[in-house]
Amino acid sequence: MDFSFSYYIGLSGIMVFTISGALAALEHKDHHHDLFSVFFTGFITAIGGGTLRDITLGNYPVSWVRDENILWAIFIGFLLVILFPGILTKLRDELFLFDTLGIGIYTVIGTRIALDHGVNFFASALLGMISAIFGGVIRDTLMNEVPFIFRKEIYATACLVGSVLYIILNAFDVNANWNLVISATVVVGIRVVAVRYNLGLPKIKLFD
Amino acid sequence: MDFSFSYYIGLSGIMVFTISGALAALEHKDHHHDLFSVFFTGFITAIGGGTLRDITLGNYPVSWVRDENILWAIFIGFLLVILFPGILTKLRDELFLFDTLGIGIYTVIGTRIALDHGVNFFASALLGMISAIFGGVIRDTLMNEVPFIFRKEIYATACLVGSVLYIILNAFDVNANWNLVISATVVVGIRVVAVRYNLGLPKIKLFD
Amino acid sequence: MDFSFSYYIGLSGIMVFTISGALAALEHKDHHHDLFSVFFTGFITAIGGGTLRDITLGNYPVSWVRDENILWAIFIGFLLVILFPGILTKLRDELFLFDTLGIGIYTVIGTRIALDHGVNFFASALLGMISAIFGGVIRDTLMNEVPFIFRKEIYATACLVGSVLYIILNAFDVNANWNLVISATVVVGIRVVAVRYNLGLPKIKLFD
Repeated sequence: MDFSFSYYIGLSGIMVFTISGALAALEHKDHHHDLFSVFFTGFITAIGGGTLRDITLGNYPVSWVRDENILWAIFIGFLLVILFPGILTKLRDELFLFDTLGIGIYTVIGTRIALDHGVNFFASALLGMISAIFGGVIRDTLMNEVPFIFRKEIYATACLVGSVLYIILNAFDVNANWNLVISATVVVGIRVVAVRYNLGLPKIKLFD
Repeated sequence: MDFSFSYYIGLSGIMVFTISGALAALEHKDHHHDLFSVFFTGFITAIGGGTLRDITLGNYPVSWVRDENILWAIFIGFLLVILFPGILTKLRDELFLFDTLGIGIYTVIGTRIALDHGVNFFASALLGMISAIFGGVIRDTLMNEVPFIFRKEIYATACLVGSVLYIILNAFDVNANWNLVISATVVVGIRVVAVRYNLGLPKIKLFD
Repeated sequence: MDFSFSYYIGLSGIMVFTISGALAALEHKDHHHDLFSVFFTGFITAIGGGTLRDITLGNYPVSWVRDENILWAIFIGFLLVILFPGILTKLRDELFLFDTLGIGIYTVIGTRIALDHGVNFFASALLGMISAIFGGVIRDTLMNEVPFIFRKEIYATACLVGSVLYIILNAFDVNANWNLVISATVVVGIRVVAVRYNLGLPKIKLFD
């Protein structure tokens, strides 16, 4: 598989995740809002999911330890936040699209890496999803909040659908680049539709 | 050591941990209670402790990545919760016994795996305990609560006693299957007695 | 590099981190304050950062699994807390100096280990800092609080400056023992000055 396409998209995803994490720190009431805490929250958001995936797979060296470009992408995202915090906050709607593109790509890359490690389909699908969502989960946990995946409209589920689709298309020998585009697009599509129409999964009632 | 006995008990433990985690999500006030968040909380509760143990030991592939049956056990537990949430909530007392059996087995299996990696006794005892309790710790942390191990009657301590006992009996060449049964029973026994009589460890007073 | 000097300082750091973690548990209002939870909070505080560093690097076996002395240092710290909780609470100012020495040493050792794994400079600096701060981050997260690194005066930043300095001096072939002493001293110095004069990093204003 040629990773050059997904590689640069992936770096953009890292940068956008950094921005969304850093902005979350800026907007948090109990936060110091100093340079470090904004940087660190962005960093954790950007690398958390991929790091957990690599650690769970024993896929060493972990991506950001191996590839300095990831850290540069984080640094650029951080610089953008401290230089233009007001503008980026107003651009949230546009950033949402980037973030959604990011989780689409993360999902597919994570699933691919798991499959390349010979992991079974079920676990590969979960690891694809974990790659995409766990940076945000760790960020929210450190901010002392219930993670957004437990509060938001369909989010992690979109990733799970995308990773399952990737695995199915992969089993049918669909070209890897096409598979990447199709599966990531499905993640993005589900997420966009869910947000626009405020769709959620069925809820389970405990007391009826 | 013949793992077939402990293997099937272990799978039951996975399923029961999934149920207890999923029910905790259902009962949490800030939770979305949708299908995904209930599934994911169950999943994390079931695999958290073993995953942390394997990652700390460098024991790759991690159990649920290697063995698809673990994921099926989780899926069955999840199905039971979404099909019979009311019944399972009422069965909590009975589930408590399963959960307790689960931590007994988890403790022993975790200790065994650490010893098989040539880990010193002190660290093996801690890793046995971590296998049993950390799924619940991560669950509580994600739910934005102080983990139950810091609030409940004797819980982790029961695991620690069980893992130390396992290591001692192992040093005296007690048959591994007997050792599993004896040590897990001691964990269960301590836990049951502690809950019934509301026993706790001595508290440390800071101001006297 | 001769680690014998840093080794014993490192063990002292482990002990002091255990004490600071155990005291934090004692002072927490939602805590059980029993023997186990005090021990476990101390344990997590002491080994969290180094464990995360080793796991991220794939540096197996993880330090406390390999070296029983680390667990003894933790046990001694724990004993001191349960025997003399009142005295240790009053000694907080003096302990602060130990804790600060601890993060200085942790930073340098963590950076050294990352460099020895052939990790790039940027990631090595981050891993040095992570070694020093993440035990406390995990402790605060388990205690259901926003981590101190997001609240306190310059703390993690001091570590980051120290690890960058270590890497620079290392690139100039400065003797490793001198480098350890100089870089750790700089961490301690920045931290002491920051606390004394209540210095923080510039804050980022979101709304102006």
